[in-house]
Amino acid sequence: MEKLRGACVIGQSGGPTSVINASALGAIETALDEECITKVYGMANGIKGLLEDRLYDLDQEDRDELHLLLHTPSSALGSCRYKLADPDKDDTDYKRILEIFKKYDIRYFFYNGGNDSMDTCNKISKFLLKHGYECRVMGIPKTIDNDLDMTDHCPGYGSAAKYVATTCMEVYRDAAVYGEGSVTVIEVMGRNAGWLTAASALASAQGCGPELIYLPEVPFDLEKFIRDIKEVLAVRKDVMVAVSEGIKDKDGVYISSYFTDTEKDKDAFGHIRMGGLAPNLASYAGARVDARVRGIEFSLLQRCAAHVGSENDVNESYSAGKEAVNAAVSGITDKMVGFERVYNDGVYECRTILVDLEKVANKEKKVPLEWINETGNGLLKPFIDYATPLIQGKNEYPTVNGLPRHANLKYVKPTV
Amino acid sequence: MEKLRGACVIGQSGGPTSVINASALGAIETALDEECITKVYGMANGIKGLLEDRLYDLDQEDRDELHLLLHTPSSALGSCRYKLADPDKDDTDYKRILEIFKKYDIRYFFYNGGNDSMDTCNKISKFLLKHGYECRVMGIPKTIDNDLDMTDHCPGYGSAAKYVATTCMEVYRDAAVYGEGSVTVIEVMGRNAGWLTAASALASAQGCGPELIYLPEVPFDLEKFIRDIKEVLAVRKDVMVAVSEGIKDKDGVYISSYFTDTEKDKDAFGHIRMGGLAPNLASYAGARVDARVRGIEFSLLQRCAAHVGSENDVNESYSAGKEAVNAAVSGITDKMVGFERVYNDGVYECRTILVDLEKVANKEKKVPLEWINETGNGLLKPFIDYATPLIQGKNEYPTVNGLPRHANLKYVKPTV
Repeated sequence: MEKLRGACVIGQSGGPTSVINASALGAIETALDEECITKVYGMANGIKGLLEDRLYDLDQEDRDELHLLLHTPSSALGSCRYKLADPDKDDTDYKRILEIFKKYDIRYFFYNGGNDSMDTCNKISKFLLKHGYECRVMGIPKTIDNDLDMTDHCPGYGSAAKYVATTCMEVYRDAAVYGEGSVTVIEVMGRNAGWLTAASALASAQGCGPELIYLPEVPFDLEKFIRDIKEVLAVRKDVMVAVSEGIKDKDGVYISSYFTDTEKDKDAFGHIRMGGLAPNLASYAGARVDARVRGIEFSLLQRCAAHVGSENDVNESYSAGKEAVNAAVSGITDKMVGFERVYNDGVYECRTILVDLEKVANKEKKVPLEWINETGNGLLKPFIDYATPLIQGKNEYPTVNGLPRHANLKYVKPTV
Repeated sequence: MEKLRGACVIGQSGGPTSVINASALGAIETALDEECITKVYGMANGIKGLLEDRLYDLDQEDRDELHLLLHTPSSALGSCRYKLADPDKDDTDYKRILEIFKKYDIRYFFYNGGNDSMDTCNKISKFLLKHGYECRVMGIPKTIDNDLDMTDHCPGYGSAAKYVATTCMEVYRDAAVYGEGSVTVIEVMGRNAGWLTAASALASAQGCGPELIYLPEVPFDLEKFIRDIKEVLAVRKDVMVAVSEGIKDKDGVYISSYFTDTEKDKDAFGHIRMGGLAPNLASYAGARVDARVRGIEFSLLQRCAAHVGSENDVNESYSAGKEAVNAAVSGITDKMVGFERVYNDGVYECRTILVDLEKVANKEKKVPLEWINETGNGLLKPFIDYATPLIQGKNEYPTVNGLPRHANLKYVKPTV
């Protein structure tokens, strides 16, 4: 089969991770080296920038500088949280996308994001097909939330998990120095799936992590929370608790909403914006237990801490981007690159697979309930076995003046 | 001169750092290898544990395990915030200390801490001298605040500074991805001296750090703060601000106190919301500027993040502990080990010096005003030149299962 000739465009979407640029790099480097891809464009701020005809000509970047994306956190091309309309109701955006594609002769579309982005890919692909415009559309996953379906795990999760576990170990040692009784409540990202909060159990498995872990998968009860803390305080002076930002009660009400009026603050997807659960839970517990209680929010740090990234995650993220281009060039379209885990003589190996976009779009994979303990406040061995390989290896980033040397791109506008 | 024979005791005090154990290790390993030191004890929770006769027999620890202290954050022996009374008013504690010293034949006292700890050393030394009990007393500095006098810098500062600068760089890239306007307010530790907040300027020097930096050395004004942010927003979409927790207004009132103790600050359960200068400043600014404002508190993370420690800091901290023992054994007493900076052919070198305890106790060294810009919201080149050597080199810590391998001591009680 003859390879489809034309330009490619790659975009990043949703919340950044510390390795989303590694995936972008995998795609960009492979595309730059691919003969049938005539031009490599980047979308400024994802699909939003594409609609506004804001592209970057990535052929103009210095290859060595570009390669530093392997260790550069955040979304170097810029991101967006733009949601495309249902094309049956309003196809304005889709027509515009087709117009831009024609302008630049874009025949390959790579979109790097979470489940919303896979939905974006899916809709664009269907629209192009309907209008007889040949274009290969591939999704490249990313999310620290690890909640994409049909893949063993997601690029970005391993590094964020390594950050959470490493930092929990360090804070665990710090918080206990006075021996006078302390409760440290750590808030980790994760609205509906508790994967990242669960990563704190990797610290516990080393003897230096939370005694209590609460995920959104299990209904949360404030009274039980206090009882749980008191039970741990009865046997040791210092307690660490990890909570997902998205813990909910048995009626599905976010615990964070108990403390604030968050109904006001919704993002473009209608998600309630989170924040401040840790200090609020700390105040609540502080008034009810006999110990000093402190709340710590890992905030943005957990999703951009490339300095403690997982080498496995960096390499796998790169391979996901690379595979997206290779598959598209070989004629495949409408797929997301996923991961399959294999064990060779007991040694973990990660292989890329291709998954139908349709099957991934808008779905959320949660932590299996059978991996959570009976009392709903801790993780069991299957989770530890699952997550441990994902955090292996240090991301050995280059430095200058003792600080990370990130990629500084030129962001050249195309001359088309 | 004949060397003084007897046991030694080492204690840690005040807030932990990621390298206070490196200093302890320098002292412990040197003492264990020193023939005239008959026994090496650790105080459980510093002077507080000493008063309660809670010691550890460090001769019983495995030497390889002990050596892992080089990369283990927090105070492995436990810490305290106990302040000794004025011996002229109440000498109870001092008598008890002398009693314990006699019980264990302690002839060497090493205390690892900040300026309060140097005061403790000084008072104990004078009391022992007055009572004719021969004992060498040496202070080993530590503080992420970098505010000890008579030393170029303090063990612990370099690693915390490296954490602050590295994390600022990462958050800087993360916060700007949407290109829709953002203000990120980062709160850094430092009640009276702004050294650690100033370290964020190292990130700015790399082009990825705060545009605005506020230290306690310069009176803070809320209206000017908003004007400053608006000025930066006029030239770029995303602004990063670093503030010391201890910023004060022209009357010396902590800015953090502006936001607490009001009815408004109570949550739905009637508890006053805890901490949070950063979120409070963020809310304040959010209502006054046209951008999304977010507050991030580095909290305990900045003082325990050994995973991004400075190699120079680790090595210098170790050398401070080692020098304390060597000096004491050679007959010196009543000193704190300090650092002197020398440049050999332009290459930074750090040498240990010995400083009178009296001259260090209870003093605070602040950031020189001539290192701060005229508008009071940024640092100048002399600070960058000062701080850069302190963050050099990566702390190459051992790992197990992808996570730091910290020292797990046995904490054996003495048989005396």
